[in-house]
Amino acid sequence: MMQVLPTLLSVEKSSRLPVYLQVANQLMTLIRNGTLQSGYRLLSTRQLALMLKVHRRTVVQAYDELLAQGWLESHTGNGTFVAKNLPEIEPVGKVNGQKSPSNLKKAGFHFDEPDYLNRSVLKAGTRLHLDDGFPDSRLAPLEDLSRAYRSQLLHGNPYVRLGYGDTKGSFWLRDELSAYLNETRGLKTTAENILIVRGVIMGIHLTTAGLLKAGDYVAVDSPGWFGANMNFVRVGAKILEVPVDEYGMDVDALEKICMKQPIRLVYVTSHHHYPTTVALRADRRINLMKLAEKYGFIVFEDDYDYDFHYLSKPLLPLAGADPTGMVLYCGSFTKTISPAFRVGYLVGAEDVISYLARFRRIIDRQGDQMLENAIAELFKTGVLQRHLRKSVRVYKQRRDTFCELLKTHLNDYVNFQVPDGGMAVWTRFDPAIDLKAVAARALQKDLYFSDGSLSKLPLQLHNGVRLGFASSNQSELEESVEIIRALI
Amino acid sequence: MMQVLPTLLSVEKSSRLPVYLQVANQLMTLIRNGTLQSGYRLLSTRQLALMLKVHRRTVVQAYDELLAQGWLESHTGNGTFVAKNLPEIEPVGKVNGQKSPSNLKKAGFHFDEPDYLNRSVLKAGTRLHLDDGFPDSRLAPLEDLSRAYRSQLLHGNPYVRLGYGDTKGSFWLRDELSAYLNETRGLKTTAENILIVRGVIMGIHLTTAGLLKAGDYVAVDSPGWFGANMNFVRVGAKILEVPVDEYGMDVDALEKICMKQPIRLVYVTSHHHYPTTVALRADRRINLMKLAEKYGFIVFEDDYDYDFHYLSKPLLPLAGADPTGMVLYCGSFTKTISPAFRVGYLVGAEDVISYLARFRRIIDRQGDQMLENAIAELFKTGVLQRHLRKSVRVYKQRRDTFCELLKTHLNDYVNFQVPDGGMAVWTRFDPAIDLKAVAARALQKDLYFSDGSLSKLPLQLHNGVRLGFASSNQSELEESVEIIRALI
Repeated sequence: MMQVLPTLLSVEKSSRLPVYLQVANQLMTLIRNGTLQSGYRLLSTRQLALMLKVHRRTVVQAYDELLAQGWLESHTGNGTFVAKNLPEIEPVGKVNGQKSPSNLKKAGFHFDEPDYLNRSVLKAGTRLHLDDGFPDSRLAPLEDLSRAYRSQLLHGNPYVRLGYGDTKGSFWLRDELSAYLNETRGLKTTAENILIVRGVIMGIHLTTAGLLKAGDYVAVDSPGWFGANMNFVRVGAKILEVPVDEYGMDVDALEKICMKQPIRLVYVTSHHHYPTTVALRADRRINLMKLAEKYGFIVFEDDYDYDFHYLSKPLLPLAGADPTGMVLYCGSFTKTISPAFRVGYLVGAEDVISYLARFRRIIDRQGDQMLENAIAELFKTGVLQRHLRKSVRVYKQRRDTFCELLKTHLNDYVNFQVPDGGMAVWTRFDPAIDLKAVAARALQKDLYFSDGSLSKLPLQLHNGVRLGFASSNQSELEESVEIIRALI
Repeated sequence: MMQVLPTLLSVEKSSRLPVYLQVANQLMTLIRNGTLQSGYRLLSTRQLALMLKVHRRTVVQAYDELLAQGWLESHTGNGTFVAKNLPEIEPVGKVNGQKSPSNLKKAGFHFDEPDYLNRSVLKAGTRLHLDDGFPDSRLAPLEDLSRAYRSQLLHGNPYVRLGYGDTKGSFWLRDELSAYLNETRGLKTTAENILIVRGVIMGIHLTTAGLLKAGDYVAVDSPGWFGANMNFVRVGAKILEVPVDEYGMDVDALEKICMKQPIRLVYVTSHHHYPTTVALRADRRINLMKLAEKYGFIVFEDDYDYDFHYLSKPLLPLAGADPTGMVLYCGSFTKTISPAFRVGYLVGAEDVISYLARFRRIIDRQGDQMLENAIAELFKTGVLQRHLRKSVRVYKQRRDTFCELLKTHLNDYVNFQVPDGGMAVWTRFDPAIDLKAVAARALQKDLYFSDGSLSKLPLQLHNGVRLGFASSNQSELEESVEIIRALI
């Protein structure tokens, strides 16, 4: 080895790197790649300098550098050696299997957890569930989706298909979706009006982070969806609550608010309001759009389950009557396929969509192109449309079954309206009923339903909860209502 | 129909909803679901009141409500009819196919696009590419991944598997990953120390949004990665640049900065620094950790391609020598499989990981459970580890080939060090060369490489670019260098 060493080193005098650093770096590399082992005795500085044709002081400097860093050690009068204990940063302790008992529990730096994040999360895993309004994934065209995904993954040039892509999302999906939205909702979009996101929550997050600033006023449905409010609070926006009645947001009340301070954004769930499932009335829609144009605020229209309406003449979204570009319209495949497929869409004027797509780049770079293309394929082949038609038929039947069950078995304890759409019944229990206790006891019988604590808004005053009917079949619905009946 | 109508209506006197609204709502539903068609003549208010056993004024109120909303119209002396033009909000115009010419180009509300987003995005699609340092997706175990994904999608209870899940990500993946990180990097983690994110950029985004506030000081490598800086700037943090030399960040310079103002976070790419590929020297690592403990700042360790080192004794990450919990460690499968699979991991103390997981809920709710579980399966079956070993062998060979080509054909025009790891060579072109012009002409020959404008930092002063070698095979590398040679 000693003979070999100089042939492994080379010196480039024209380099900007000083020669001593060139030597030190190369020696360090030889140590780190195992060529020079611990205990290996280096040539004397004089010998090495001669062989490299450099000044001896240069080699001394190189050795000193490596001694200082701990790569070498010198035994007085005996020479310079590769260090016994190389300056690896050692792990904190020995690793014994993956369940290390001394993993870190607490961060060494300070942080405050903001109060708005402190919310319970939905539970899954019980056999029965009257959930927040989720689809029945058992109906989803998983076999078709899986085939389409596989085909996306395995065909074509992988460098292009599996590389970085458009932050707006798959063009194919945007194109198919544009046609679908225009046909079913009376929108007037092209692919350039659409940004594929990971569900409505990311549409809200992007809009909030990209278009709101601290101190901006945001008007929201009250009661309303906490997921949206959490985002608004996060950026320091000031939330103004607009009451919701049987016809959705009280737009007259909104107008009064507009006259008092500048509103930057109005968040509205125009169909199947969350949590009450009411729809915004036609005349209020027209007035809301007039206010938007007059006061210049953004209308964020959260239309999370538009496809699931059971009337033959559902109202068209606000976004369909927006010639001046005030609306950002947001929907999702969460309810169409299943919550696990995190694909949704934000629709708006080209300029703001293009801006938010650039903004999205610093959040998660881009969506899942394979999945997006797979969904596009299901659109193109009509699988998704057939699945939707089937789902609407099945869910409508389940809605009727469930409402009939509520009426038959719980008529004395609950108050509800049959919803025109969506996947849940907004159910107000008799104030005398301790919902928290009933929900806890139901859990023991393998039935989940919300005890109302999920929404910290004035909801508890109503003792109201959403009872989702779509994810359960008839016998599951019967069993669930029976359990509640027995516990009340 | 006229006879049927009253049997379709019912009145609930105990309801909180006024009776007239009950009647109005039910009529509106009948109109919207098509039971009552346009032009249908309603019973007189007197007749309907008699049949419903309500006061006539109640029916008048209900009709008035619907007249006001436009659902009904009254023809004087002739009765009340379902309106000819129902108050649907009409689409802005007729939709003719999906390429509507009058889609919205400009938003109706005002917004400013911040300057920091104004960066060119990488191009894909040329046959040849010396990219920013991407893997060769042709080598990726796509067939295995596809099978694993399919199995995740189709087996088990779809309500649970395809429902909402843990915002930290798949437990299975976190568990497998924990073992892998402990084994390969000397970390001491359990699944509770890991948050699955969608690539390093989301780790940075979450950390920035959750732990920084406007006015906080952040110290970064300079030159450094603009993707990180864009996030810091966005929240209003003040960026302090710490010079990078051949041994990575100048930690002495950092200490001087620390003495002047409180630093909240230090962003460092400890291995394969971006863009220069240098590694942070052992003694500097130790000093950096001492400074973190002394000054209480967060160390964000971006370790985007640790797995790809070509020395037998690579340095262990800072996170392995962090008994007090100062480090947030971030890695990704972007380089392991391909950029399209948006899966990465943020590692830290349990409390901060748990907080950031709750925070993640308002960004995209959760990751792709099927994909995460599929990757876990590749870990468990050893497919991923075998793929990594193969990739490292192939990329090391390509690095050597490429550096040899640079040396042979471009020696007079470029200056570079052979990188110890990663997928790109940091190549400084002779200042006399107009890189922008060369890159533009190379594009015409179907070869992409960056012209340096991607990074707006002092990089251009160096006329330096990253030339990625990993995604091209030997003949592609040869062809690429030949094209550049011919253009210089």
